[in-house]
Amino acid sequence: MANDIPNSIPDLETYIRQLAAEAKKASRALSSVSTNLKNRALLTAAARMRAQKASIQEKNRFDLAVGREKGLSPAMLDRLELSDKRIEDIAKMLEEVAALPDPAGEITQMRVRPNGLRVGKMRVPLGVIGLIYESRPNVTADAAALCLKSGNAILLRGGSEAIHSNIALARILQESLKECGLPAAAVSFIETTDREAVRLMCRLNGLVDVIIPRGGKSLIETVVELATIPVLKHYDGNCHVYVDKDADADMAHKICMNAKIQRPGVCNAAETFLVHQAMAGDFLQNLIADLRRNRVEIRGCERTQKIDPAVKAAAPEDWDKEYLDLIVAVKIVDSLDEAIDHIALHSSAHTDAIVTNNYSAAMRFLRDVDSSSVMVNASTRFSDGGEYGLGAEMGISTDKLHARGPMGLVELTCEKFIVLGEGHLRE
Amino acid sequence: MANDIPNSIPDLETYIRQLAAEAKKASRALSSVSTNLKNRALLTAAARMRAQKASIQEKNRFDLAVGREKGLSPAMLDRLELSDKRIEDIAKMLEEVAALPDPAGEITQMRVRPNGLRVGKMRVPLGVIGLIYESRPNVTADAAALCLKSGNAILLRGGSEAIHSNIALARILQESLKECGLPAAAVSFIETTDREAVRLMCRLNGLVDVIIPRGGKSLIETVVELATIPVLKHYDGNCHVYVDKDADADMAHKICMNAKIQRPGVCNAAETFLVHQAMAGDFLQNLIADLRRNRVEIRGCERTQKIDPAVKAAAPEDWDKEYLDLIVAVKIVDSLDEAIDHIALHSSAHTDAIVTNNYSAAMRFLRDVDSSSVMVNASTRFSDGGEYGLGAEMGISTDKLHARGPMGLVELTCEKFIVLGEGHLRE
Repeated sequence: MANDIPNSIPDLETYIRQLAAEAKKASRALSSVSTNLKNRALLTAAARMRAQKASIQEKNRFDLAVGREKGLSPAMLDRLELSDKRIEDIAKMLEEVAALPDPAGEITQMRVRPNGLRVGKMRVPLGVIGLIYESRPNVTADAAALCLKSGNAILLRGGSEAIHSNIALARILQESLKECGLPAAAVSFIETTDREAVRLMCRLNGLVDVIIPRGGKSLIETVVELATIPVLKHYDGNCHVYVDKDADADMAHKICMNAKIQRPGVCNAAETFLVHQAMAGDFLQNLIADLRRNRVEIRGCERTQKIDPAVKAAAPEDWDKEYLDLIVAVKIVDSLDEAIDHIALHSSAHTDAIVTNNYSAAMRFLRDVDSSSVMVNASTRFSDGGEYGLGAEMGISTDKLHARGPMGLVELTCEKFIVLGEGHLRE
Repeated sequence: MANDIPNSIPDLETYIRQLAAEAKKASRALSSVSTNLKNRALLTAAARMRAQKASIQEKNRFDLAVGREKGLSPAMLDRLELSDKRIEDIAKMLEEVAALPDPAGEITQMRVRPNGLRVGKMRVPLGVIGLIYESRPNVTADAAALCLKSGNAILLRGGSEAIHSNIALARILQESLKECGLPAAAVSFIETTDREAVRLMCRLNGLVDVIIPRGGKSLIETVVELATIPVLKHYDGNCHVYVDKDADADMAHKICMNAKIQRPGVCNAAETFLVHQAMAGDFLQNLIADLRRNRVEIRGCERTQKIDPAVKAAAPEDWDKEYLDLIVAVKIVDSLDEAIDHIALHSSAHTDAIVTNNYSAAMRFLRDVDSSSVMVNASTRFSDGGEYGLGAEMGISTDKLHARGPMGLVELTCEKFIVLGEGHLRE
């Protein structure tokens, strides 16, 4: 088996503009396709994923071999692998997306103006979504399924390590579309590992409606810097748990532990605990002891260090870090205000939680913390499209415009005004 | 009276970043201010506008004198002028915005998940809005009022011709805020005519949440090219009226005339009529005659020219033009499909209308025309925040993300997820 994916394409710009133009054409066709037909394509793809498992895995093994040669870490190789279970998960996801309600076409807020004109809104697909992502090949199928269901075309640009696996999955999706009489270009994949492709994608004004970069901070920053089309950013999660003076100590302990250790490597895990000084006694000592038992490294403010001299000093940059690891920063604060100010300064505006039984404190935290998810008495780990009941998610937006927090099918659509008159003229 | 506004400021970047940082601080304070207090500030500003009319007009006369020296057209000078009536209109607008419902704080979609977790959304201000605009000084007050009401701070950058008038209006708004104990920096104005300010505003990541450019196409294109923060674009309106084969001829005639001549200089006036071939007889001849009577220049396709040889030939670029004048392009099409395809190719996706009594044609047009407003049997001139019942508008977005079409108070806010638990932990 040979690596047949080019590292560069002679006229990359023409190639990518051509792909995007085909995707745009497909998106126009798709916007008027019935939900039944879109579902049939999703179910066809699910069946094909199962039937063509062996050939997907053959391509996947190639990526794994190249990855091993390149010295990828075992964790990265694990993320790359399309095991039997992962392919079955992809097939199930396709079936689940088929079962979700289709947001496109919904008409709302239809009101009659004093002159008899009817004005309302109709939900429609965005058009063409450009997705730039890294490593995990199942994102190819997840994103394509959500876009197809909501009537959008997608232009995919995956990470080089997974390129053979990604193309194998994209082709199955394309064949499924064709089998159902839908345009294959609704799922378009940029078949090169050339990094220049990212820059070109960012400037497809008039062809691509929004770029979603999913990956490391530097990828997102590059896209933001280059893009002349709208970007929905998925920045990291520097999430906080604030333990208020009126917290139930037992509940606060459990929430802190869950938020930190249940799955430390994901964006909705907590990175900093803010502890009210009234809770800096037994509660904090027990928490520190339990964190240590669970091999969590603690980096504390000076006051935390006074309570437990074995705690390492937090450097100023610790307050801004997303550790994604068994490390936590701990700061003792004098008040709810100080906690809210700290969060305003250091949070990545992803998810922040308060633990309290004080009504006013809960209400103030909900109102004044400006993050995509704000929680009372719950672990930050719940910040997730599935947990919120969105059915599936395209990612977690840390932007304020258009989509904030977990993005489901609805966030892949927009609303246009529709106006129904009976010969109405403006006076 | 001397021109005391500097053309350049020694350290412009520091000045603008300082202003933006103050605005951001003000936005945090504003987000928790009661609607009553925001309304009191708006009503205070209305009273001050009336009381300080003479001093506003003194500054305005200076701008007018400079404009006359520079040779501004009478139309431009008229737009600049703050007559008694215009200042009264500003005061009334402030009172009207005070009377509108406050969108911030609304909690919706609160649902209980199977595990008992309550998940919903809370509507909150965006934060700091950066507005770049041209000529008309009343925009200063309109935009500031809408931002204040929705809990946002605003960073204003107006056109150089109106700089003294703009500063006079901004200062009255700032004094009104102070009088009510609110931070004056909630209305921040960049007090220089240096064009470099636009570039610097576009890159205030972390300080400004969205940039809204209102003005000519080249201004918007410049902002899109430079911006690393989200942009809500307000592009021009190349609006279409499609007269279907099943149109009521009399209704179609009146809608075409209203859309073209009732106020030709605005973005929601029609620029192109698409006429089904079945309507290319008496209907089109009467329409052409009536347009001529009203001094409208007609630029037609070849088939239109055959019907009336006096019609000037439309050049290919005519189909993409926003004339903003008594000129209209006319094209005969063979079908609804051809009309929809023409609109997809040439419309600026602002407002497009069909005139028909055919149910299927109306439904297809509504669904398949991808513009911010799509109308059946109504004049495109209705595409307006006031006409839609939004109360007031920040502009008309031709973007698909976040806000599409007339932007009211709601579009100056976003929704964050709020999660209410009872000690919930993720399993």
